[in-house]
Amino acid sequence: MAVPPSTYPRRLLPLFLGLFQAALLLFFALFVTYDKSSAQVEDTSLVANQVYSTFPFFQDIQVMLVVGLGLLLTFLPRYGFSSLTHNFLLLNFSMQWALVLQGLLHHFHRGQIHLDLHKLLISEFAAVTVLISVGAILGRASPCQLLVMATCEIPIYLASEWVIVTCLGVLDVGGTITIHIFSCYFGLGVSKALFRTTQQPPHPKETPTPSSDLMSLVGTLILWVFWPSFVAVLCQPGDAQHRAILNTLLAMSASAITTVVVSSLLERDGKLSPGHLQNGSLAGGVAIGVVADMAVPPVAALALGSLSAVLCVLGFRFLTPLLGRKLTLHDQCGIHNLHGLPGILGAAASVVAVLAAAGLAVAVGASLLAGLLTGAALRLPCLARPPERLCFDDSLYFKIQDQAGSAGPDSSAEEGALALKEQV
Amino acid sequence: MAVPPSTYPRRLLPLFLGLFQAALLLFFALFVTYDKSSAQVEDTSLVANQVYSTFPFFQDIQVMLVVGLGLLLTFLPRYGFSSLTHNFLLLNFSMQWALVLQGLLHHFHRGQIHLDLHKLLISEFAAVTVLISVGAILGRASPCQLLVMATCEIPIYLASEWVIVTCLGVLDVGGTITIHIFSCYFGLGVSKALFRTTQQPPHPKETPTPSSDLMSLVGTLILWVFWPSFVAVLCQPGDAQHRAILNTLLAMSASAITTVVVSSLLERDGKLSPGHLQNGSLAGGVAIGVVADMAVPPVAALALGSLSAVLCVLGFRFLTPLLGRKLTLHDQCGIHNLHGLPGILGAAASVVAVLAAAGLAVAVGASLLAGLLTGAALRLPCLARPPERLCFDDSLYFKIQDQAGSAGPDSSAEEGALALKEQV
Amino acid sequence: MAVPPSTYPRRLLPLFLGLFQAALLLFFALFVTYDKSSAQVEDTSLVANQVYSTFPFFQDIQVMLVVGLGLLLTFLPRYGFSSLTHNFLLLNFSMQWALVLQGLLHHFHRGQIHLDLHKLLISEFAAVTVLISVGAILGRASPCQLLVMATCEIPIYLASEWVIVTCLGVLDVGGTITIHIFSCYFGLGVSKALFRTTQQPPHPKETPTPSSDLMSLVGTLILWVFWPSFVAVLCQPGDAQHRAILNTLLAMSASAITTVVVSSLLERDGKLSPGHLQNGSLAGGVAIGVVADMAVPPVAALALGSLSAVLCVLGFRFLTPLLGRKLTLHDQCGIHNLHGLPGILGAAASVVAVLAAAGLAVAVGASLLAGLLTGAALRLPCLARPPERLCFDDSLYFKIQDQAGSAGPDSSAEEGALALKEQV
Repeated sequence: MAVPPSTYPRRLLPLFLGLFQAALLLFFALFVTYDKSSAQVEDTSLVANQVYSTFPFFQDIQVMLVVGLGLLLTFLPRYGFSSLTHNFLLLNFSMQWALVLQGLLHHFHRGQIHLDLHKLLISEFAAVTVLISVGAILGRASPCQLLVMATCEIPIYLASEWVIVTCLGVLDVGGTITIHIFSCYFGLGVSKALFRTTQQPPHPKETPTPSSDLMSLVGTLILWVFWPSFVAVLCQPGDAQHRAILNTLLAMSASAITTVVVSSLLERDGKLSPGHLQNGSLAGGVAIGVVADMAVPPVAALALGSLSAVLCVLGFRFLTPLLGRKLTLHDQCGIHNLHGLPGILGAAASVVAVLAAAGLAVAVGASLLAGLLTGAALRLPCLARPPERLCFDDSLYFKIQDQAGSAGPDSSAEEGALALKEQV
Repeated sequence: MAVPPSTYPRRLLPLFLGLFQAALLLFFALFVTYDKSSAQVEDTSLVANQVYSTFPFFQDIQVMLVVGLGLLLTFLPRYGFSSLTHNFLLLNFSMQWALVLQGLLHHFHRGQIHLDLHKLLISEFAAVTVLISVGAILGRASPCQLLVMATCEIPIYLASEWVIVTCLGVLDVGGTITIHIFSCYFGLGVSKALFRTTQQPPHPKETPTPSSDLMSLVGTLILWVFWPSFVAVLCQPGDAQHRAILNTLLAMSASAITTVVVSSLLERDGKLSPGHLQNGSLAGGVAIGVVADMAVPPVAALALGSLSAVLCVLGFRFLTPLLGRKLTLHDQCGIHNLHGLPGILGAAASVVAVLAAAGLAVAVGASLLAGLLTGAALRLPCLARPPERLCFDDSLYFKIQDQAGSAGPDSSAEEGALALKEQV
Repeated sequence: MAVPPSTYPRRLLPLFLGLFQAALLLFFALFVTYDKSSAQVEDTSLVANQVYSTFPFFQDIQVMLVVGLGLLLTFLPRYGFSSLTHNFLLLNFSMQWALVLQGLLHHFHRGQIHLDLHKLLISEFAAVTVLISVGAILGRASPCQLLVMATCEIPIYLASEWVIVTCLGVLDVGGTITIHIFSCYFGLGVSKALFRTTQQPPHPKETPTPSSDLMSLVGTLILWVFWPSFVAVLCQPGDAQHRAILNTLLAMSASAITTVVVSSLLERDGKLSPGHLQNGSLAGGVAIGVVADMAVPPVAALALGSLSAVLCVLGFRFLTPLLGRKLTLHDQCGIHNLHGLPGILGAAASVVAVLAAAGLAVAVGASLLAGLLTGAALRLPCLARPPERLCFDDSLYFKIQDQAGSAGPDSSAEEGALALKEQV
């Protein structure tokens, strides 16, 4: 396995995380407590009701982020463990970091922060932005770089969300603008600044295998099933929430079918591309968020779902290669196609077009700029950017058994090929 | 890969789906709206309650159909992508098509159809019949054939369900007769008419691998866990729903254990067959549907679960080969064993035996006839029935990477074997 | 495949299970009925409410046990089918057996046992102990041995739980002491008595492959997501349940991050060990159970989660090898690290330290002794302990296709290697 990278940056990960966890413990010990609602009898049932109406949605969203999104990212055949684990680690880290920041910003009364399920949910939404942005540089960044990125992105997201929702008054219950568009352009900014003008060459470990593509599709299906919970959880209970669920179901159903249509049309022999299916089926859920709870007619949800799937698949086919060639913009998972284009479509469709446009400008502008700056910071040599040869390779971060000699024939063959390549 | 099949039928899929989606948009634009219940204050909480009591069940059923059933069908090792995707596509297509038909038939008042979650759920139930029937011809039919089949099956199901439930007054809350028996014999009819008298030879790609069998078993377990939601969702809230949940849990638990007993007894050396486990464990859920919410004693649920598992495993061992030899009836997934036999058992066990018998006659007779006619229609050459050599092969419908040269050793070996076969 | 083990013990499995199932049917026919709450009008809504507040938690727990735990155990690459199926079979068997015993012990009034969802849930909790204990001897015990073990463990658990909760008054809502500690030491006792002083040599089929490790990690993530439901389901609805959910979320989030920190520190080059992640991430859930619903500050949950992850990872790194060498104690899945150490930590942290200590003594002492006796019983030759050569091998219990000749290159290679080894 040639010379291993120096061990110093490897110590950076536990050091960084360990210090963060210690600081979090200190912060919680000093400032965080649970609601004392049991003191007031009438509040108890209210709190209980809030828990029971939120908790099932919360669990659905946890399944989406931990299992669904994790599996979706395992399309890189030799990077499955890293994809799942980094996604899981970043979710927990970002959620805790958002909890601290939000507590300080919004909920700090009388020296105490009162924790409840709703605040955890809001922090989880903040963490989603990190998980999306990471898609742009998946496999080419070290865990330390990803953690620094999360550290930067969470406060910028909170500021951006505050400007868009509180200052501009944009209604965006499903996070189309505040989450999807923001995280997409932040991620692209990071990618641009991190890789500069060097176009990333195709990597031998980048190509999915049938079995890794299948796992990834299972992830898509899990996301697809639970997406209505993600869009509807923050709606007003009752009619608005009912509408949000129905609109999301319709949009996603239309996306699924339209993706098959467009993907099949784009390939000369009418076959379907796994990548299109994995992403296009979800595009409707991204686009519908901004109008999900509004009194739009059902046909609008269907149309939005169809159109966003068209945009997403076209984006994969034409825009991503173009951006790669012209702007040397690297987008590993195609987040611009799944989160950027459908998000902009959804924002454009919003009936509060003027405000949404202003919100859109904030989301795109601020996130892109912040992403560029963050990406530049990730170039710090101490953050251990993986060497090109070991990108997309679990063995850089995990004790993988098949290195130890008990390898199956194909992995050893590939190792051999790599060794050969190094000699040349 | 030798001469590709002509590209013309490949264009049929996007054309068919695209036109359907456009027509759906038009239909929704003209006729579909949401409930305007927010006008009446007292209704709001009712609607909300209905949503909150239905939505968790609805999500469970979505998980079953999209993830559980999808994975169950991936036992064909080189057809996993197609199984998952065709199942997903057919669910969405059939659900939309059922929504249109049901809207026209039942809910068309004052020129408008009022959409709500309950109507989506009913349409989803209709779509289940298609997903089950497809099991009989999985891997040997093109997507276009499957879509035509869905187009035919949905209206016939709606008519059959109307006759059985509304006209005959059969109580069948879990869909034992209306869904499982109907879709089983419809699927067998399609298979019979499609393949006529030619017995399908064993196909080299039909044999599961350990890893594809494992994925399929995971699908079974997901279906097993959420099955009570499927049976109970349409019950009267309260005691009846509680009973339906308990009866289903008991029946499925008995099925699981009995399947191990019978499978182990049937093999000379006492080993278990993965196929028996994947299907027998679910047989109790099929059988219990028709009596789930009735005041039957718990022992009846256990007995029904055990017996249906016995029937299912015996069916796999003896009946399927017999039907294949004597009637040249091809049943790829063994839907007759999982849905037909346990369904008939459940119907027979129904305390409303007279009515159920009449319902049974409708379900078996109508579905078999309709299936035969539909299967005959699928023989139209333009529907692109896959050539025998490419049955059970993802590469016919998907851009599979391992064709491109980066194949692992075993796939290239198999390609080589195929190439050899062609030369001969 | 050399000489097959004699077929006699193979018949034992269906015989044992078949007789059990018949006895269960008889028992249910004579004694079990559903609640007749529909007679009293006022009770109906109460029962309904109980169902609707319990059922979603119940489903979550079913997903954990059937899918999550099942997948977690598939880290043995050639034993995936057995792991999933034995786990599934034991869950059903133990649940039914616990239902009978609990019915006889606690709920036998006027000659009848009134079955409801809550009693099923309690029985499911009893079954969990078996599923955990089995982890100590996974792959080295036959299904018959496992069933005998379950038959012994369930009544001992019920007695132990009665002593700890009812007699000693220990509050243990999440089962830290009654379930995790009990089942850990019971399992270790069984392992010790079963394997005696012979240290188990490393087995060639014991080593996980990247893909089996990945499936196992997916199982961990499913367990991680739904763990709050497991801890909170038996809490008082309202504030206590809300606190239990929040405490569990915090503890598990801290565990996830701390596991990465410690695992990375322990390896010389800073890589992560899949086994640490698969177990350490869940340690917080084990430890938090005993105090989850108490009015502890949030920082205590975080600290407990972090500490238990530290203990768990250190246990894997240092304690398991030590126990193996010094006490010849075999612990295949490391249940002592995941359930024993964090459980003891949680018990120690319990504010009712005195009582918990007494409960701890009961749980450890009684379970260890009972486990030793049970393990000695499992040495009966008629229970078909698998020969060393066929440990960790699905082909002993399942009709596996790749034996039949259609094997991929790597499996046949391994068979070849085995054959070679036998010759030597």
